[in-house]
Amino acid sequence: MADKRISIGLLGYGTVGSNVYRLLDDQARDISEATGSSIFIKKILVRDPSQPRPGAPQDIFTSDFADILDDDEISIAVELIGGVDPAYDFVSDLLKKGKAVVTANKQLLSRRGAHLFELARENSTRIQFEASVAGAIPVIKVLRESMVAADLKSISGIVNGTTNYVLTEMGRTGSKYEDALARAQERGYAEADPTEDINGKDAAAKMAILASIAFHTPVGLDDVACAGIENISSLDIAFAGELGYTIKLLGVARLYGERVNVRVHPALVPDDHPLATVSGAYNAVFLKGTAIDEIMLSGPGAGGMETASAVLSDMVSIVTRPQVSPLENPVAYRNLGFFPDDDVVSTFYLRLEVKDEPGVLAAIARVFGDNGVSIESVIQKGRGAHAELVMIFHPVREASFQAALDTIVNLEGVRGKPRPIRVEGKEHEH
Amino acid sequence: MADKRISIGLLGYGTVGSNVYRLLDDQARDISEATGSSIFIKKILVRDPSQPRPGAPQDIFTSDFADILDDDEISIAVELIGGVDPAYDFVSDLLKKGKAVVTANKQLLSRRGAHLFELARENSTRIQFEASVAGAIPVIKVLRESMVAADLKSISGIVNGTTNYVLTEMGRTGSKYEDALARAQERGYAEADPTEDINGKDAAAKMAILASIAFHTPVGLDDVACAGIENISSLDIAFAGELGYTIKLLGVARLYGERVNVRVHPALVPDDHPLATVSGAYNAVFLKGTAIDEIMLSGPGAGGMETASAVLSDMVSIVTRPQVSPLENPVAYRNLGFFPDDDVVSTFYLRLEVKDEPGVLAAIARVFGDNGVSIESVIQKGRGAHAELVMIFHPVREASFQAALDTIVNLEGVRGKPRPIRVEGKEHEH
Repeated sequence: MADKRISIGLLGYGTVGSNVYRLLDDQARDISEATGSSIFIKKILVRDPSQPRPGAPQDIFTSDFADILDDDEISIAVELIGGVDPAYDFVSDLLKKGKAVVTANKQLLSRRGAHLFELARENSTRIQFEASVAGAIPVIKVLRESMVAADLKSISGIVNGTTNYVLTEMGRTGSKYEDALARAQERGYAEADPTEDINGKDAAAKMAILASIAFHTPVGLDDVACAGIENISSLDIAFAGELGYTIKLLGVARLYGERVNVRVHPALVPDDHPLATVSGAYNAVFLKGTAIDEIMLSGPGAGGMETASAVLSDMVSIVTRPQVSPLENPVAYRNLGFFPDDDVVSTFYLRLEVKDEPGVLAAIARVFGDNGVSIESVIQKGRGAHAELVMIFHPVREASFQAALDTIVNLEGVRGKPRPIRVEGKEHEH
Repeated sequence: MADKRISIGLLGYGTVGSNVYRLLDDQARDISEATGSSIFIKKILVRDPSQPRPGAPQDIFTSDFADILDDDEISIAVELIGGVDPAYDFVSDLLKKGKAVVTANKQLLSRRGAHLFELARENSTRIQFEASVAGAIPVIKVLRESMVAADLKSISGIVNGTTNYVLTEMGRTGSKYEDALARAQERGYAEADPTEDINGKDAAAKMAILASIAFHTPVGLDDVACAGIENISSLDIAFAGELGYTIKLLGVARLYGERVNVRVHPALVPDDHPLATVSGAYNAVFLKGTAIDEIMLSGPGAGGMETASAVLSDMVSIVTRPQVSPLENPVAYRNLGFFPDDDVVSTFYLRLEVKDEPGVLAAIARVFGDNGVSIESVIQKGRGAHAELVMIFHPVREASFQAALDTIVNLEGVRGKPRPIRVEGKEHEH
């Protein structure tokens, strides 16, 4: 069939950008057959266009954003620069010109998403962002297009591959956090500066995006309570294993009536829960809703080619549906309040260093009891000065649990800082 | 916002039909907010409209197909009758009138799909069928819209909930096939006549649909080699368990160069493979492609509300995108040949009843060796007249393996019929 020619402007040519270029080329025939269009990259914005780059012809590189913005033939721009500045200005300008934008930029979306979506609507265009969350897994499309009538109640998932790789390695080899992280860096699963991965901020940005789409309400990065994996010890992983749990860094977004709560924290997940089997740099997203029971999507959470595949699926979607439909731009038609973290009811695991002396456990148990915290099981590990209590609790309001801990830390015979970890997914049945 | 009103004609009002009616009602606000349209069911075709039915007002039921076909206000028809006759005639007539059709009918699609897709294109309309495979799991949308550039090489999965429930029960309780099936029927996971589930035909129809969409080539029900779970014994499940495997009824569709092979058969799956953890009536589909590595989608494979949710997602897709795009109708732009089953290279598990006598194993091993079949491991269970050999083989061309078995069955000391089961997913790494 006679193909329509679609011109693309690419912003950024790092790992994902070069893979987008390559994949478009490799899959040109399939794309043309499936869409009736041939898609080609006309211009690529980089800082220094004189530097030779593999894969793409030298003459399509430019350092002048206007070469893309003012080219009326370019109807779709793909933003792969990352970060808020200057990506925000670029994307705003492109949308104002009526160009469709595809982006993989989770920072940008979790900080300025609501404004950009509005801008897209005002200019009768769209912004698509499948690649911003969970790499090749088409979770954004599924949430926006397949879950309209699902009555979603929660989304939980493993949305950061680096931390999942580190935790998997710690569990597999018994190695310390620092060693597992170094290994992840060696193997390319962690950046040179992995701070945002490790402290949970990367996962928090992704959960903000997922929660806004799923619950149709604005959720920004600052609305997500966030804890990382810095304090997870190989001891915790081993104890959790003995109890039948695997430790994962989870993002959890839940509706509580008309309010929403979104958080990222490490959690013990039962070994027979599907999320427990997601290992290495893989991601998984677990959806629960009245009409769908539980659906899980899992796959590679990162990787140049995998992310490029998600970028291309957005491009294909725009090319084959030039008319913007209500499904194309997320509309925050609800404006839900936030459910306070203190009021969330959670199950906790706690490892507590204690002196193995008469009366210590009784004193601890009394404080928990006074705060309405009920102990499900307790195991003592070790003896004498280096004893540890490993405890699992019945579900409890988080503020009550914290109040108990604040008293317990000052008890005689209790050493070090208590490090509770939440338990998620115990109610799972499949 | 001022809603557009969309009128639907429903064909059939069984479990799924009544749930579609209910879900449309329950989720009316969400659907209207997300789509800008209110969707309502104007007519429902049933055999006897005088019979009182819960949920929907009596006056919208009709036994006259023309009430839907000739009503120009009805732009979308939802076919939930099942089977080929009279569904095929109804759907053809609706498409010829330019109405969009949503169907959950896997029999119809796997037997007449290619013709119906053609008819939809000729009449500038579409046929959508998310609910025909894997219930609430949006695998059709993901395959058609997110995998255009993924270069898919294989789809495997658990696409029949009844057999998965039966196999899970046999594994969990050690019960016999007949007892587990009876239990599935009691609990509503199996029909009164479960023949098509048990013999693999239901899964074969679904794999035909998935393979056609994924590989863009016509695959009908008759192109799928098919074996069911009738001969799986609790002994096989126990032995597989000892070896670290779980037995599942798998659908497997693979590209071999420019040829395709699609089959349904029981298979041993390693316990740490994600498909092994899919239990009960759940379904899962596992996609592999150059650009995506491995993606898995899992969730409830059946259930009235879950299937209704998939039907509604198709309705929403049509309502919000009245213009038919190239992604809306599957085009078989390739016309691939079929790769012969005999030439498929597989790994096998084999349980063989033998007399525990000198020379029997040597004779068996010699026959396998003569046919180029290499044994990976062999364990003898029992002694004397009731000994059994449990063997795992290295990958082998299926015809060679079958030739060896044809000789072995006639060896002295070998009793009963050898029942090989394929092993799948050993190469999985995550």
